[in-house]
Amino acid sequence: MRKGAETRERILDQAVRLASRDGLEGLTIGTLSTELGLSKSGLFAHFGSKDELQLQVLQATVQRFEETVIHPALSAPRGEPRIRAVFENWLAWENNPSMPGGCLLIAAAVEFDDRPGPQRDFLQEAHRRRFAFVAKAARMAVETGHFRPDLDVEQFSFDVTAIALGYHHLHRMLRDPKADARARATFERLMADAKACAFTR
Amino acid sequence: MRKGAETRERILDQAVRLASRDGLEGLTIGTLSTELGLSKSGLFAHFGSKDELQLQVLQATVQRFEETVIHPALSAPRGEPRIRAVFENWLAWENNPSMPGGCLLIAAAVEFDDRPGPQRDFLQEAHRRRFAFVAKAARMAVETGHFRPDLDVEQFSFDVTAIALGYHHLHRMLRDPKADARARATFERLMADAKACAFTR
Repeated sequence: MRKGAETRERILDQAVRLASRDGLEGLTIGTLSTELGLSKSGLFAHFGSKDELQLQVLQATVQRFEETVIHPALSAPRGEPRIRAVFENWLAWENNPSMPGGCLLIAAAVEFDDRPGPQRDFLQEAHRRRFAFVAKAARMAVETGHFRPDLDVEQFSFDVTAIALGYHHLHRMLRDPKADARARATFERLMADAKACAFTR
Repeated sequence: MRKGAETRERILDQAVRLASRDGLEGLTIGTLSTELGLSKSGLFAHFGSKDELQLQVLQATVQRFEETVIHPALSAPRGEPRIRAVFENWLAWENNPSMPGGCLLIAAAVEFDDRPGPQRDFLQEAHRRRFAFVAKAARMAVETGHFRPDLDVEQFSFDVTAIALGYHHLHRMLRDPKADARARATFERLMADAKACAFTR
């Protein structure tokens, strides 16, 4: 049993790696079996179908995102420190070595947004949860008095999402060495706006 | 000759449509021939290879983007009106009926950002040109006095890119009915910041 779980983990690691390069549709049980030196039938025994493999790869990736970005941020104090922790963790996540071809959650969102099925349902739910988490962290920052009382916390969450997507685009597609600085500059302007009291805005 | 050009146009229309749904890797000459009722050998005569088909689909899409978003904005007066025209045209482009599966340029960026080759080279160049166009339009807005003199125009271009990507994500992945309002709210804050003189910021 123990060994089965380890094998499964090793398969998912490699599957995340390949999917970050080739997309989830480009991930085939054939390529995966070649890369891992395992038989196709062995892989089928673990995952049953390509749909199931895709779903488990997405589940493993979301779990890692939450362990890397969300959970450590919960150790930071509520308010501005937690918001900053989420942002820092998220930028770092975009360069996570487990995904050499770039963020699988961004790639999968584009790949599955118009394909109804369990993969899209799962992704949509995960992205909504992440969106709600940032909005909630912003709400706490209002409650602690770090952010202004009239802040639209969902708009704030949209803005953080947009910065992360913009960073990914500049970094991965344009290969712009200023991607990191650009994302941080926009984030600091967003923070200043969220903190400014209504009279000085 | 005339007829050949029309057929080619019809093939590319359908290819853009399919690629917006299935990705460029998911676009096969087989599917395309079934959808169009043309023989595979006929399609090969037009495009030669899958790589060449992908490249021509990307070229056709970039040309449409420029005709839909960039060129009409050039008819708007320099300064704030041109910036607003680019933004409006860009949001409308994301819902262009020729791409029922969502923006092919965003999807292709994620698909090709880590795959060296002529497709990536072409896309990178097109995205850089678009980035530079918005930065140049912002520079003109500084020159006309609409934007403050110390505005970082490339940062401004990054911010517009991030809003467009955030809009696409909220609209397509989260199916959030507020996507349009969110994108506009962030854009208006960006405009207010670009216009504000240094003393009132």
